[in-house]
Amino acid sequence: MSRRRIPDVVIRRLPLYLRILDDLDHTETPIISSQELGARSGVTPGQVRKDLSFFGVFGKQGVGYNTGNLREELRKILRLHQQVAVGLVGVGNLGTALIRYNVAREKPYPEGTGLKLVAAFDKDEKKVGRKISGIEVFSLINLPELVKSLKLSVIILTVPAEAAPGVLNHCIQAGVKAFLNFAPTKLTAPPNVRIHHSDVMLELESLAYFR
Amino acid sequence: MSRRRIPDVVIRRLPLYLRILDDLDHTETPIISSQELGARSGVTPGQVRKDLSFFGVFGKQGVGYNTGNLREELRKILRLHQQVAVGLVGVGNLGTALIRYNVAREKPYPEGTGLKLVAAFDKDEKKVGRKISGIEVFSLINLPELVKSLKLSVIILTVPAEAAPGVLNHCIQAGVKAFLNFAPTKLTAPPNVRIHHSDVMLELESLAYFR
Repeated sequence: MSRRRIPDVVIRRLPLYLRILDDLDHTETPIISSQELGARSGVTPGQVRKDLSFFGVFGKQGVGYNTGNLREELRKILRLHQQVAVGLVGVGNLGTALIRYNVAREKPYPEGTGLKLVAAFDKDEKKVGRKISGIEVFSLINLPELVKSLKLSVIILTVPAEAAPGVLNHCIQAGVKAFLNFAPTKLTAPPNVRIHHSDVMLELESLAYFR
Repeated sequence: MSRRRIPDVVIRRLPLYLRILDDLDHTETPIISSQELGARSGVTPGQVRKDLSFFGVFGKQGVGYNTGNLREELRKILRLHQQVAVGLVGVGNLGTALIRYNVAREKPYPEGTGLKLVAAFDKDEKKVGRKISGIEVFSLINLPELVKSLKLSVIILTVPAEAAPGVLNHCIQAGVKAFLNFAPTKLTAPPNVRIHHSDVMLELESLAYFR
């Protein structure tokens, strides 16, 4: 099935399934049912089966999915079985905090695979050359060459709202196709480019229920 | 149905449904089907109907939901038809960025209702008394009295990982029951307290697919 046809939110649920499988002891739990995976991720068993069938992954009827195989399949589908080099643009308050948190956080995948933050960028030449938790800050001007040499394929945007469209275009022209945007503004991009918006408001709104 | 029985992720989808309804012109689209709401939020129509039926909200069979009514129902379920006062603890890089973004962001709900960030806290007395985008920074010591006087019911935690458990307990003892945690650490709390963890990693992992 074409990658284009799969709904965005299906892709967004895959890391959650993967997290659940990462947290399981595969010796103790060699098989997981769509019921169990659904209960832990909060969707119906039918939704789990539908999500996974998009990628040709089918459990054994009445039995379930082999947990180890399913984890490997999900890693491959998400292309996390390779190293994914991540860059961050905008070393202000939020950018600095994300670099520190990201570097400090324990990674769930084996060394040499998965996401790795490798470079930061800022237009402010005073910040260039600094290191934050070991991550060097480069000039935004040098982004295109570093996208190539470091194989950056995902960019985190932590620039002010008014700077976001210009920086986005700069990155797209350098060949980047995947962005996580924290700037509080809507961004548009060609159809082959994916932008996810981090939305603290949605998180807070669901918390209002529990207060 | 008891509030306790409803899966967390169901509650987490409600703000997404609400956002979709907020973005619709209710005159042009007086009715929305579970198919349409599902397609826009990326779940199956059955999942939509199941989610809403938890709260006794049922559409007309073969017709759908009245968009205006459904929006009002969701606001009430999420208790966003009242003002929800939000506090933030930890005025470091991340806290400062979230205050600025939150205040700058356009709110989708009418004046006097919904989420409103009203106070920030820090243990560093040098930061106390400062204002960030109009939000005053108070001493953490004064949190209990301000929780009462400002009716703070949701707290955003942007403190370092090692400080998070202590700050959490301080807030729980002051009567707060809902937290959005950005500290890169797992936190535990009594069953009547809800903690959501903001997880940039899950966002980035789904982006790896599209790079």
